[in-house]
Amino acid sequence: MNAKEKLKSANQSEKYICVGLDTNPKKLPSHLSSSKNPVLEFNKRIIESTKDLAAAYKLNLAFYESEGVKGLQNLEETLTFIPEKVLTIADGKRGDIGNTSNLYARSVFEHFNFDSTTLNPLMGFDSLEPFIDYKNKLNFILVLTSNPGSANFQKQELKNGNYLYQEVLKKIHNWNNDKNCGIVFGATNISELRDNLELIGELPMLIPGVGAQGGSVDDVCTTIFNSNNNSFLINSSRGIIHKSLGEDFEKAARDELIFLNKSISQLIKV
Amino acid sequence: MNAKEKLKSANQSEKYICVGLDTNPKKLPSHLSSSKNPVLEFNKRIIESTKDLAAAYKLNLAFYESEGVKGLQNLEETLTFIPEKVLTIADGKRGDIGNTSNLYARSVFEHFNFDSTTLNPLMGFDSLEPFIDYKNKLNFILVLTSNPGSANFQKQELKNGNYLYQEVLKKIHNWNNDKNCGIVFGATNISELRDNLELIGELPMLIPGVGAQGGSVDDVCTTIFNSNNNSFLINSSRGIIHKSLGEDFEKAARDELIFLNKSISQLIKV
Repeated sequence: MNAKEKLKSANQSEKYICVGLDTNPKKLPSHLSSSKNPVLEFNKRIIESTKDLAAAYKLNLAFYESEGVKGLQNLEETLTFIPEKVLTIADGKRGDIGNTSNLYARSVFEHFNFDSTTLNPLMGFDSLEPFIDYKNKLNFILVLTSNPGSANFQKQELKNGNYLYQEVLKKIHNWNNDKNCGIVFGATNISELRDNLELIGELPMLIPGVGAQGGSVDDVCTTIFNSNNNSFLINSSRGIIHKSLGEDFEKAARDELIFLNKSISQLIKV
Repeated sequence: MNAKEKLKSANQSEKYICVGLDTNPKKLPSHLSSSKNPVLEFNKRIIESTKDLAAAYKLNLAFYESEGVKGLQNLEETLTFIPEKVLTIADGKRGDIGNTSNLYARSVFEHFNFDSTTLNPLMGFDSLEPFIDYKNKLNFILVLTSNPGSANFQKQELKNGNYLYQEVLKKIHNWNNDKNCGIVFGATNISELRDNLELIGELPMLIPGVGAQGGSVDDVCTTIFNSNNNSFLINSSRGIIHKSLGEDFEKAARDELIFLNKSISQLIKV
């Protein structure tokens, strides 16, 4: 299965949640501290406990890179715990001049063999092209992010009448010849999501910002329900992996995932 | 010396070139292939041969990350070859939601102890704040990049009359309370550079895009000469480190740097 098929298959099995493995070595359940490698042990147990329910796992590269060599080793090994049929996302928001993006693309898609990645489109087409050239991967391009700063530039109105994020969205359709582009659209921007469903069309969506950042799963689902889009992931990181910081952390993560999948199934089926 | 002082001191000593250590393991002089670690040997010799002439060294993180664990080790070790008084730049173009940018900032400014970094402003202020909070570091924020794709979004005209890159430039001034922000402005955009010198003001500039990308050192210098800006770096990566791919590569790099520093001194002193 290629990346897009993995996502479709997950959604068809009523799995909608992308589990964000933003694993912070300083915020682990204390009973793991005696483990040889607490980060890896944590990831392994979370994956073991959720792999039949997760639509995807998103690894936030910052959390691994910031631990240097050991972090990269943990990143590599964590990927081996994830079943082949479950989508993996490298969350790095890269985007650079062509010969540099080439290297980033090779790193996430070949060295680490991720199925998909997040990309920052500010530098334009040639900065994304090396990623888009991988036809069987999936590229989630930032359209409208979930943070307050999205108002600074992404929500700037252009002279041509579009907002910048809409201009990005339109360009993505032009770049999507191989149907391997998706978008990142923050759950904190519900009215913009509602107003742009037609423009989004069938682009797969990665939706961060629920939970700690203030977005609501209910609002997202009732909004998407009114559209033709049937390929989406709602990301939850801390809301799942830190649902409990006690000895029951795996079970708490699993229970939360069951709860979210059920809630979403009900909301989008009504 | 803090980062900005290092840059000022370099410029005062008529050093203007940022040497881009975009070291590609597949493009090294063949006589280094017998070395235990050709990338590291190459960087060491380039630095040894240019350290009294370079205003800064820019390490393009993609080139190191894409080599995995070994690449990160090379990155760390390369930094130890660079004299304390020479500015170091982590070229990663990061920018993410706050808690993630925190980790990236800690990684480049604490773990690796770079003096400065490049940043992507698309996600707005809170995505850059964790970097800007390091008062003694220097943050080169992408304003107008040197690649063709800069036309896609950065050169979009806004309803308020600014181009997007000008809006970024204006916001940077608002964010620059600790005078630790600079800008990236591509040498391929000379007319825009000329038209915005007043708006740029005294912001330190990192100027990529000369050489292989088509920008001209002469054009940049004659343009800057007419401004109040006296704190800038012209980046050259392949133009210096690949000036020769033979056994004389260190000497060729040194000669090119001498040539560039002299040319620039003459151009901006006329």
